[in-house]
Amino acid sequence: MRINAIGTIHTPFKEIARMPIQPSGAAGVRGEIVLLPELVEGLADLAGFSHIIALYQFHRVERCDLTVTPFLDNRPHGVFATRAPTRPNPIGLSVLALKGIRDNILAVENVDMLDGSPLLDIKPYVPEFDQPEQVRTGWLELARDRARSMRSDQRFG
Amino acid sequence: MRINAIGTIHTPFKEIARMPIQPSGAAGVRGEIVLLPELVEGLADLAGFSHIIALYQFHRVERCDLTVTPFLDNRPHGVFATRAPTRPNPIGLSVLALKGIRDNILAVENVDMLDGSPLLDIKPYVPEFDQPEQVRTGWLELARDRARSMRSDQRFG
Repeated sequence: MRINAIGTIHTPFKEIARMPIQPSGAAGVRGEIVLLPELVEGLADLAGFSHIIALYQFHRVERCDLTVTPFLDNRPHGVFATRAPTRPNPIGLSVLALKGIRDNILAVENVDMLDGSPLLDIKPYVPEFDQPEQVRTGWLELARDRARSMRSDQRFG
Repeated sequence: MRINAIGTIHTPFKEIARMPIQPSGAAGVRGEIVLLPELVEGLADLAGFSHIIALYQFHRVERCDLTVTPFLDNRPHGVFATRAPTRPNPIGLSVLALKGIRDNILAVENVDMLDGSPLLDIKPYVPEFDQPEQVRTGWLELARDRARSMRSDQRFG
């Protein structure tokens, strides 16, 4: 399957090291999504949504590791049990707060991806579709609160 | 960017018509994800999570519409304000309940995609990363409860 960038995500993070781990570690961090101008028609009515799901390419990742030691733990885990970028298909997913839209430019908050990340899709976030109840999170149960304060290092660079 | 299927999702839905609209309309519907056997190492520790995010290809969709009239409304909206499959990059996203893993096969519930959908990624669902608060959902505010009972038709076939 061939997929093409439909835009670019701009964030304050120019380097793989010292980035927030997840949107929960990037609360309030502002970024901008610049959609290809020829796709602007597809944004109609999106401004009524407070949050979007952004899919993007981990464009600086060049390898795939089936076992990774994520930032939030010191033990190795299967890559599909983590959000590490070194996945078979290096697609990232972040839920972002949508603050405004002007023409083909979206002002967003909680950005946790590298500056220049190629945008692959924007979907509206809908709790009825995307928010299950009674969730268990395995190895992350103990580790997840660390996401708010931790920063990345070079390990996936 | 070239991405390759890493497995296949099996569901009861063989036809584009009369499918559930979203996981919320597919509560309890069982399916199976068959991961490529050579990737099974990547599943380590995933069984501790109750829910996963599955990314997959809308493999029966051959066109892109920037304006769509979704199943849940009778008015047109920009495609990025909907979950319609006729997107520039036809990537679907569903949050599924993970019921068990045996070797390279995952038993899942709440499947809302076509049988045979090519799997692109599995991520653990983590409320701290994926569950924002104070969400507004625009045009869907009035329409979203319909997702539980509605079924698809041929419009995106």
